[in-house]
Amino acid sequence: MEALSAGQFALVYNAFSFGIATFAAATLFFWFGRSQVSHHYKTAITITGLVTFIAFYHYWRIFESWTQAYQVADGVVVATGIEFNRAYRYVDWLLTVPLLLIELILVMRLSQSETVSKSLKLGGAAALMILLGYPGEVSAGIDSTRMLFGVLSMIPFLYIVYTLYSSLSDAIARQPEAVRGLIRLARNLTVVSWFFYPVVYFLPFVLRMSGGTSTAVIEVGYTIADITSKAVFGLVILAIAVRKSEVEGLTGARV
Amino acid sequence: MEALSAGQFALVYNAFSFGIATFAAATLFFWFGRSQVSHHYKTAITITGLVTFIAFYHYWRIFESWTQAYQVADGVVVATGIEFNRAYRYVDWLLTVPLLLIELILVMRLSQSETVSKSLKLGGAAALMILLGYPGEVSAGIDSTRMLFGVLSMIPFLYIVYTLYSSLSDAIARQPEAVRGLIRLARNLTVVSWFFYPVVYFLPFVLRMSGGTSTAVIEVGYTIADITSKAVFGLVILAIAVRKSEVEGLTGARV
Repeated sequence: MEALSAGQFALVYNAFSFGIATFAAATLFFWFGRSQVSHHYKTAITITGLVTFIAFYHYWRIFESWTQAYQVADGVVVATGIEFNRAYRYVDWLLTVPLLLIELILVMRLSQSETVSKSLKLGGAAALMILLGYPGEVSAGIDSTRMLFGVLSMIPFLYIVYTLYSSLSDAIARQPEAVRGLIRLARNLTVVSWFFYPVVYFLPFVLRMSGGTSTAVIEVGYTIADITSKAVFGLVILAIAVRKSEVEGLTGARV
Repeated sequence: MEALSAGQFALVYNAFSFGIATFAAATLFFWFGRSQVSHHYKTAITITGLVTFIAFYHYWRIFESWTQAYQVADGVVVATGIEFNRAYRYVDWLLTVPLLLIELILVMRLSQSETVSKSLKLGGAAALMILLGYPGEVSAGIDSTRMLFGVLSMIPFLYIVYTLYSSLSDAIARQPEAVRGLIRLARNLTVVSWFFYPVVYFLPFVLRMSGGTSTAVIEVGYTIADITSKAVFGLVILAIAVRKSEVEGLTGARV
């Protein structure tokens, strides 16, 4: 069933190692950056680093699982019989995806009640989205199950996109002018990079790919999406926090 | 194909271990030094340490891969059939080479727009240079592929060299007099140490070396180049940041 070439094995292998290095470096960068923002934004930056730290842990596990699932000798890839654990990604997302939305809410420094209500709604929808995607992802080979849960998972996803562009837009308009562009960038980066996941999820299904090609596309695709939505997104959140700390430090005002 | 002598195996083995120790020590030195520079330069020094941290991670992986690829018994080196993963270097460079240029730009403390535009141009060219070199490096034995991608990779490289000596020269002239010499040194060190990479890349090709000799020259050569361009370069960046913190602390001026 699974015919993985040596080149495909190496590509996925190197993508996972790239993920480990990127997430470790990003985590340290964010936590060092914590000293450069005012105390209002320290929690947002702590969480920004936690997200990449959790991703670092899971990419380490994924890498180990990948090297245990296959043996490469003299250019030939042989499955060892130990299954590659795809579930690590969902365990990771269940923790990190709600936290990513909470990062964005915290760095906006809304009123306490607004922060709690938006975090619960968006974080809850994000958790539901991941839980619904899982049965589809692990149903290797059964197209109808992959399709059904993929579509179900899109419902909370579209609710999140709608909320980010409706009620969050009002909140963005109340942000200091100096950071409004950056916050819109963070919001758009979330939506664009998150759209990558359903594309990767449905692509092998739509293009009727299978075996090694499907595996390589899914794993490298998810890795690129993860780095964009967690590490690159985190850089924008840090930039917002630094800018807001400077602006508010000068005026002493909340907004 | 690969006839590695016990001496060549040991030389590369020890060079990798030297790399691990050097990069770990450099990382700690830079991050300790972070407390000795003003807040304007903390990000530059954080990144200086991140570059050596990422290199430390990859030298650890490279070392592990090297010891898995060969067995030495009674002075004879036997390939185990597990391939030595040359790609780790390219994964490393894809992350660290753009960051090295960003270090240099950040420590100059240019205007925000100039920082962003120069980082994107130089960082993007550096990433392109690495991506183009990769297919050539992994084409073991196929000279024409190595030649083609090596030459293609030289185009962004020469663009970087040109930019460092043209538009960056103007920016250097606006730096405080006390650090102008050090910044020129950092710039020249970048160009000289980076020229080492194409030399190592093309040398086995030009000298018609093969097998063990070629492997030893490439691996030891890249290790020396990595230590120069990341750890030694980082020391110069730290020296610039310390000097500028002192000068600006006295005058309170931006430049």
